[in-house]
Amino acid sequence: MDRKHLHENILRKKSFLCVGLDTDLTKIPAHLRGEERPIFAFNRAIVDATAPYCVAYKPNMAFYEGAGIEGLRQLSETVSYIRQTYPDMFIISDAKRGDIGNSSEMYARSVFDCGDFDAVTASPYMGEDSVTPFFRAGKWAIVLALTSNGGSRDFQMMVSLDGERLFERVLRISRRWGNEDNMMYVVGATHGKLFASVRRIVPDHFLLVPGLGAQSGSLGEVVEYGMNSKCGLLVNSSRGIIYADRTERFAEVAGEEAWKVRCEMAKFLN
Amino acid sequence: MDRKHLHENILRKKSFLCVGLDTDLTKIPAHLRGEERPIFAFNRAIVDATAPYCVAYKPNMAFYEGAGIEGLRQLSETVSYIRQTYPDMFIISDAKRGDIGNSSEMYARSVFDCGDFDAVTASPYMGEDSVTPFFRAGKWAIVLALTSNGGSRDFQMMVSLDGERLFERVLRISRRWGNEDNMMYVVGATHGKLFASVRRIVPDHFLLVPGLGAQSGSLGEVVEYGMNSKCGLLVNSSRGIIYADRTERFAEVAGEEAWKVRCEMAKFLN
Repeated sequence: MDRKHLHENILRKKSFLCVGLDTDLTKIPAHLRGEERPIFAFNRAIVDATAPYCVAYKPNMAFYEGAGIEGLRQLSETVSYIRQTYPDMFIISDAKRGDIGNSSEMYARSVFDCGDFDAVTASPYMGEDSVTPFFRAGKWAIVLALTSNGGSRDFQMMVSLDGERLFERVLRISRRWGNEDNMMYVVGATHGKLFASVRRIVPDHFLLVPGLGAQSGSLGEVVEYGMNSKCGLLVNSSRGIIYADRTERFAEVAGEEAWKVRCEMAKFLN
Repeated sequence: MDRKHLHENILRKKSFLCVGLDTDLTKIPAHLRGEERPIFAFNRAIVDATAPYCVAYKPNMAFYEGAGIEGLRQLSETVSYIRQTYPDMFIISDAKRGDIGNSSEMYARSVFDCGDFDAVTASPYMGEDSVTPFFRAGKWAIVLALTSNGGSRDFQMMVSLDGERLFERVLRISRRWGNEDNMMYVVGATHGKLFASVRRIVPDHFLLVPGLGAQSGSLGEVVEYGMNSKCGLLVNSSRGIIYADRTERFAEVAGEEAWKVRCEMAKFLN
């Protein structure tokens, strides 16, 4: 999916919500655990309930790998289901991959050939040749810049001799590797005003923004400092939506939560 | 496996060689491609031929994920085979994982519960909570410090206000998260004399050293600047060993190449 198509979807649905599918067998409703394919059953119900209110899904690879090969098989079913049922969805493999060039090329095969994703999150630590193998026509690398977790302060805020922080250097150097049509950046909602620093370096790129809800970032601040003329934001919510209820009503409640976030977002898009 | 056990294996086998299992279906000998489980058949033959000369194996996850779910299944068979046949082997999942705490916990489950690895490589970009979930009794996190690829210069060499390079900061900060018995560091063989800078900060930790052979690092320099009193090195070779020959003699030749590296290593251990 290209940037224009993504932007059109955002305007049409009045939403820049990405629903994070962090599906954990120990957290899904009890009545689903006896199903033959509980992860897929949960995901399908969540997707059907939330699809009107979001433009993207982001399965977190850690949760599927943590359920073994069977977890990965049910992820594959999930992605196929979304593709067939909601063909306008942008699907992100949240994998934080990155290795030397020939290895990253293999990760790209995994995500884009074996898998059917539009984008993959990538760690910048190993530099250019670890990220560029993810560039393909119509596909995206979403590079970690400023993450939403506590550990983001350990290295990402390191200040260089010339006064540049590491996350700023990552933005400045890596934007040359690709362009606004094949790269996005991860910037955590927990960093509020730092979105202004990010936008000084990458005014036009889309930003994937985790950290709302369970991690307590603010949508208002993200929009104030991070939105651009093409929206430029995909704001993710995972636990706040998919685990909002753990009874047989879980999907309905997830849909309501997604609808609420989308109502907030619609105001900012007007 | 604990550090003492690993060191004993090194002394007994006179080798600190780790064989990298970067198994690519397009590079394995033609006669194996018709087999039902070609990746496993290749790995088993390579392992049987090289086991006398090495102390560790390092499957690179990218290559197995790049072959889809079937690739991961044959990786699992490979790990089980090594465990049962050569119980003293140290087995590393070269996965470069790392995400916010609850996600990294899931990656740890994947590597240590679903998988049967001793260690996993981890990217430090997201900081402390992305690495500490990999600490478990008898298990290891191997944190990227200074990688062997060209892209390592993009960020890892960034100099801070107080004159510290990023890879040095990663070593200095992260060594507090764990200790010499649950952490190692990746330092590429291509960086020769920088091993002295690494050893000033982490004198006692084991270092996992990729970049010999295809990436042209020097074993002599690595030993001169990187070896400590407990050896402290696991030097990896992948392509130089496993693809040394692509005929029906591939395993025999791989064994010879591993034997040659081990002969070099034995001199340094005396």
